[in-house]
Amino acid sequence: MRNRAIRDALVRMSSMSASMAVPALPRGSIGRSAHPHHHHHRHRRPVGTAAAAAAAAAAAAARRDMRAAARGHHPPNTSAAASSTAAPYASSALADTPPARAGQRLGDVDTPALLVDLDAVERNAKRLRAELEALGSTARVRPHAKAHKVPELAFLTLRALGASRASGVCAQKLGEAEALVRSGALGEGPDVCITNEVAPSRGKMARLAALARHASRPRLSVVVDSAVGARALAEAVAAEAAEAAAAAAADAAAPPVHPIGVLVEVNVGQDRCGVDTPDEAAELAELLAELSASSASAAASAVASPPRRLLEFRGLQCYHGGIQHVRRASDRRDAAARAAALASEAVAAVRARGLEVPVVTGGGTGTCLFDAAAGGVFTEVQPGSLFFGDADYARNEPSWPPPARGGAGEDGDVRWERAWQQAAWVATTVMSRSEARGTAVVDAGLKAVALDSGPPRVLLSPTTTTGGEEGGAGPEFRNGGDEHGVLLFPRAGTVPAGAAPPIPPVGEVLRLMPGHCDPQFNLYDWVVAYRGGGGGGGGGGGGGDWRALPVEAVWRIAARGPGS
Amino acid sequence: MRNRAIRDALVRMSSMSASMAVPALPRGSIGRSAHPHHHHHRHRRPVGTAAAAAAAAAAAAARRDMRAAARGHHPPNTSAAASSTAAPYASSALADTPPARAGQRLGDVDTPALLVDLDAVERNAKRLRAELEALGSTARVRPHAKAHKVPELAFLTLRALGASRASGVCAQKLGEAEALVRSGALGEGPDVCITNEVAPSRGKMARLAALARHASRPRLSVVVDSAVGARALAEAVAAEAAEAAAAAAADAAAPPVHPIGVLVEVNVGQDRCGVDTPDEAAELAELLAELSASSASAAASAVASPPRRLLEFRGLQCYHGGIQHVRRASDRRDAAARAAALASEAVAAVRARGLEVPVVTGGGTGTCLFDAAAGGVFTEVQPGSLFFGDADYARNEPSWPPPARGGAGEDGDVRWERAWQQAAWVATTVMSRSEARGTAVVDAGLKAVALDSGPPRVLLSPTTTTGGEEGGAGPEFRNGGDEHGVLLFPRAGTVPAGAAPPIPPVGEVLRLMPGHCDPQFNLYDWVVAYRGGGGGGGGGGGGGDWRALPVEAVWRIAARGPGS
Repeated sequence: MRNRAIRDALVRMSSMSASMAVPALPRGSIGRSAHPHHHHHRHRRPVGTAAAAAAAAAAAAARRDMRAAARGHHPPNTSAAASSTAAPYASSALADTPPARAGQRLGDVDTPALLVDLDAVERNAKRLRAELEALGSTARVRPHAKAHKVPELAFLTLRALGASRASGVCAQKLGEAEALVRSGALGEGPDVCITNEVAPSRGKMARLAALARHASRPRLSVVVDSAVGARALAEAVAAEAAEAAAAAAADAAAPPVHPIGVLVEVNVGQDRCGVDTPDEAAELAELLAELSASSASAAASAVASPPRRLLEFRGLQCYHGGIQHVRRASDRRDAAARAAALASEAVAAVRARGLEVPVVTGGGTGTCLFDAAAGGVFTEVQPGSLFFGDADYARNEPSWPPPARGGAGEDGDVRWERAWQQAAWVATTVMSRSEARGTAVVDAGLKAVALDSGPPRVLLSPTTTTGGEEGGAGPEFRNGGDEHGVLLFPRAGTVPAGAAPPIPPVGEVLRLMPGHCDPQFNLYDWVVAYRGGGGGGGGGGGGGDWRALPVEAVWRIAARGPGS
Repeated sequence: MRNRAIRDALVRMSSMSASMAVPALPRGSIGRSAHPHHHHHRHRRPVGTAAAAAAAAAAAAARRDMRAAARGHHPPNTSAAASSTAAPYASSALADTPPARAGQRLGDVDTPALLVDLDAVERNAKRLRAELEALGSTARVRPHAKAHKVPELAFLTLRALGASRASGVCAQKLGEAEALVRSGALGEGPDVCITNEVAPSRGKMARLAALARHASRPRLSVVVDSAVGARALAEAVAAEAAEAAAAAAADAAAPPVHPIGVLVEVNVGQDRCGVDTPDEAAELAELLAELSASSASAAASAVASPPRRLLEFRGLQCYHGGIQHVRRASDRRDAAARAAALASEAVAAVRARGLEVPVVTGGGTGTCLFDAAAGGVFTEVQPGSLFFGDADYARNEPSWPPPARGGAGEDGDVRWERAWQQAAWVATTVMSRSEARGTAVVDAGLKAVALDSGPPRVLLSPTTTTGGEEGGAGPEFRNGGDEHGVLLFPRAGTVPAGAAPPIPPVGEVLRLMPGHCDPQFNLYDWVVAYRGGGGGGGGGGGGGDWRALPVEAVWRIAARGPGS
């Protein structure tokens, strides 16, 4: 099998090297000057016309090859022939090996492992749905898959929210969207929004257009904040339409071209991506409407069917990540209101140009209940961590129940538990201990626990489901390097007699409550899913020994990685 | 193929559920009391005797299944039959897709991507060899593969160091050792030392013993710091020997059992793992010698051949990670001398019990030239980042040339360049920009660049090979979340006229110099290797445009992950 794959790849590469001379998707050909270092994209062709479609059809073979490569049909190591340093290729990476099997006792799972309580995820989703109903909100929920990157977990959240409340899923990268669509876990016709600008390289634009065309009826949308990005997208879909036309001429069963929805990102305070003013938002929306019309005319000239839009302006994204962790609920509510006011101004400016704004999307775990309040500007919200929880969000005073109904002044993790239930854990094993130093060392270092938003909390008790030891006597987690986590236990005399927990023995399996949900998942290749972790409703505690529970499923974190 | 694999697995699982009732590798059965929560390991059997070997042989089938699972012969998702939430399995994860192909122009590689200049890696290795020769040191070098987790890069460093200077490679986890041995990239008979305690779970111990037995002539060693860990290891190798005996009886061509080398870890100041006193080191070394003798007798009783040791006490590990980043070279030298003095005391205590100490291993990128100095206690040193470089190590005053010969008072990255050459980079693309805010946003967020030891440095110039912009006018990198890096450009007036670099256009491809080498590699699934990055010798600068260079090879980061 391997040999044949390599042979096929070598044949494909040699044919590709010829076809690559054809300029397929010029970048930056309109509007801004191309950067002088990009020597390889010198040839330009007009865009949005029948000529463009014809030129694109000529390049179709080259792009088919590129997309095949992008979809993983590359041989794993194409360097064997070319490289003097090439060694026998290792087909087995650790990522290929699941750390557990269904039915296995959780306490026996190889550590470090990422555990997710599916019951807790579903309870959190249902709790969110109930809160939105109680608010009388019509806003829909688009759970953010960047939090976990697991298609099966995306499906779980959608199902628990229900079809009337869930609008689809968010991806933060093109690669995440590809993994979600490819997996099949979301069923036929998932609605996937890439809530981020995609760098307008030739390869990424071709992949984006191909995803819209070739996946099983996706309703794909993406965010832009520049004319460069908008035009690159328009060029890519025009080229894709031309290829579709050529395919349809040869084969009536060729898949149709689906339109790509485009949202304009507006900076509502985060100072990251997004246009800065309502006017800029309106201008970019107008450009998208123009590009949409020209893509329709390109499609009409290329395909013997009524013109259809290949690019559709869908609305605005107004997300402010920086306010999600404002601790006091009333402060966070006020910050969300300021962001919503900026979003409203942008909506008004776009509408003033005669364009409809069907979607206004934004809001994260910290603000989504404020953003979704009845009468607000947001038509949908994008929580991700909310379904899983982490120690950082646990320090937030809950948005709901409202501050007046309690919550202030309590321990951070108790607050979290009153709002949502912790569902994601890291299982780790004690590998060394020292009574003299008051330390235990666990096998979860900075490659196993995300430390960017503070350390994880350590749970010594096997039966609690709240996010840390009661009474504050638990050990502190200190970064011990790549593969070590150092647990610092309270010294005698620093806590009341009897309150200091004993240092666990070598071999003991403990749980950590992750510090930051999203990068925590991203460190792992597999999620070990289970049910029955206790803690029904929104309350904490109450479970049995988690280690006796069986593994329910082991899922690949299919979109893991630095993104692309 | 997939269906058959799943069917086979289901058959294997049903046979396993019966055989799993046999206690294979009891944990914590001697010395320390087992923790009361470990209900599943209640049955005990004597260790280090023929009875143990016989009992272990009975459990061999169960452990074979476990090891098969550990080696990746599991179907990717065994939950399909068991789980009510199971969805169609996604066989393609992003990790399976290489981001580039050999021969491709580096500037066209899909971003974010991890690039490694193989020439620079080899120059760094040869520079280290030359420095050690100049010192008259006999210490050997065991490059640490935890830095990169790529078997092919481990091979590259060994080859450049030369057989007379390189003693083997370090792994930090059992899984890393498995990936190194499995890949074949290190050739036949690699010497792999796991420089860390392995948590004594049944599964890990069985894998460790199996690795020694089944891999192609590895010289495997591992570190321990507790009697629990030592005994668990002895039990595992005794069981493995019994299985080997049974196999040899049935098939004369069955692979022989290789001994596992064991080193005692001594705490020389890091306060992480390791025994705390010379006496404890000596006691543990004596226990290992006893266990070694009993493993020899177990082997003799089980196999019709001369008794051989299955466990061998090899020496001490004395590593202090905390002093690697002491900035001033003279301070770092003094700290290294203190750690070496503690190591010498431990060596003396072990020798006083009549045991030889053939190996004393330790030393990292920051201290290895001090540790390896002639007449020192260390027989080998373990640098890893040294071959690749990062922004944190670049802030160290170089160990060599000695401080008296210059280096102090210069800019951090220039210091690094004078000692070693930066070889690892992240390629990233501008996806958004704002003149109003003075920012560019690149597609490398906290899932693409390790931030635990400070941000990466941003290189705007495509021709420099030093680790940052000259003159300090380059942009600062700020964490923008999962998938965004925000580059803050100097505002007009804050730098001399003309010195402020222009904000690059959307689509521009830049390089980042990683903040911390090891977790940086761990975020990626593939290394994009190239040659010809310029900067011969130890100097900086001087290269052409890196984006025009061709990809040399694309290697899987085979041991990527949280470790196991």
